[in-house]
Amino acid sequence: MMIWTQAKLLSAAVSVLAVLVCFYTGVVVGRMRSKHGIEAPAVTGAPEFDRAYRVQMNTLEQFALFLPLLWLATALPVAIAYLTPALGLVWVIGRVLYMRGYMVDPAKRSLGFTVGAVAVLGLLVLSIVGIARAWLALSSG
Amino acid sequence: MMIWTQAKLLSAAVSVLAVLVCFYTGVVVGRMRSKHGIEAPAVTGAPEFDRAYRVQMNTLEQFALFLPLLWLATALPVAIAYLTPALGLVWVIGRVLYMRGYMVDPAKRSLGFTVGAVAVLGLLVLSIVGIARAWLALSSG
Amino acid sequence: MMIWTQAKLLSAAVSVLAVLVCFYTGVVVGRMRSKHGIEAPAVTGAPEFDRAYRVQMNTLEQFALFLPLLWLATALPVAIAYLTPALGLVWVIGRVLYMRGYMVDPAKRSLGFTVGAVAVLGLLVLSIVGIARAWLALSSG
Repeated sequence: MMIWTQAKLLSAAVSVLAVLVCFYTGVVVGRMRSKHGIEAPAVTGAPEFDRAYRVQMNTLEQFALFLPLLWLATALPVAIAYLTPALGLVWVIGRVLYMRGYMVDPAKRSLGFTVGAVAVLGLLVLSIVGIARAWLALSSG
Repeated sequence: MMIWTQAKLLSAAVSVLAVLVCFYTGVVVGRMRSKHGIEAPAVTGAPEFDRAYRVQMNTLEQFALFLPLLWLATALPVAIAYLTPALGLVWVIGRVLYMRGYMVDPAKRSLGFTVGAVAVLGLLVLSIVGIARAWLALSSG
Repeated sequence: MMIWTQAKLLSAAVSVLAVLVCFYTGVVVGRMRSKHGIEAPAVTGAPEFDRAYRVQMNTLEQFALFLPLLWLATALPVAIAYLTPALGLVWVIGRVLYMRGYMVDPAKRSLGFTVGAVAVLGLLVLSIVGIARAWLALSSG
C-alpha cells in the first residue's frame, strides 16, 4: 500500500479540485447550449457558446498534461514535497482565471493560460528531476 | 509495491472496460467517416457522423473526470471496498446506454448520461471522504 | 511507497515523453492559428490549421487509452518487465509519425496511427493478462 503522507493527500485533494474545474467547464457548455437553443450534436452557433466549448476543450487538453505530471512529481518527490501540490493549486487557479477571462473576451485568456502553463512546466521539471534522481539511486545502489 | 486486493483488481478491470468503451466510440466515428465519405480532417458533414463524433468527445470528457476519481477512491477506500469498482461498472454501463441512445436520437442521450454522472458523483463523494479520513488519521496519529 | 524498479522508472520517463508529444500537438495548433490569422474560438478556417487541430484531438483521444493501460501493465507486470515501457516508446514514435504524416497529407496518417494502435493493443493484452494472473494468485493464495 502506498504510504500516504500529507503532501500526497494534498495532491489527491488538488486532483479533486482539478476534476471539479473540468466538470464545471462542461456545466457552462450545457448552460450555453440551452440559453442559445443550440441543439446537440451541434458544437457551434453562438459566440458565447463557442467560447464555452473552447474553454472546455482547452481545459481537457491541459488537464491531460497536468494530471500525469502531478502524480509523477508526487510519487517521485524531490526537495520540498509540498511544492508539488502547491503547483497543482496554481494550475487550478490558472484554469479558473482562463475560463473567466475567455468568457468575457477570447483576448483575455492569456493570463490564466500562462499561469496554468507555468504550473505544468514546474511539474514537468519536478517529474524529470524525480525520475533522474531515482534512476541514479537505483543504479548506484 | 502496491498491495493488490480483489477490490483494487476489480478497479483495474473496470478501467480496462472504460478504456474499451472510449476506444469503441472512436471505432464508430471511423465507420461513420467511411460510410458517409467524410474526408479527414473534417469533423462534420452528416447527422449520423456528427452524433458519433459528439459521443466520442463527450465520452472522453467524462472519462477524464471518471478515471482519476475511480483511482482516488480505490487508493483511499472507505467502508465497503467493492463499492468503488461497482460504481465504475455503473459508469461503463451508463456510457454504453448514452452511446446507444445518442446514435438513435440526441434527445435519447439523457438516461445514459445521468447514469454515468451518478457514478461520477458517487466516486467524487468516496474520494473526498477517503482523503478527509486519511488526513485526520495522519494528523491524529 | 511504491518500489521503483528500472522498468517502472522507464514507464515514468515514457509518460513524460507522451505528455510532451501531446503538448507539442497544441504548440503546432497555436502556430497555425497565428500563421493563418484564425481568431479564437474558431477551430476551423485553413486546411493546414484543420489538420493540426485534428492531430491534437486524435492524439488526446489516443493518449486517454494509452496512459491508463501503460500504468496498469506497469503495476501488474508479466514476463519481461521492460516490454511495457518499450511498447510505450513505440506509442510515442507512432504518434510522432502520425503528426508528421498528417501535416503533409491526411492520407499519410495511417502508418503512424497503426504503430500507435499496435502499442495500445499490446498494452491492453499485457494489462488483461496482468489482472488475470494477479486475480488467480489472490484466489489461490
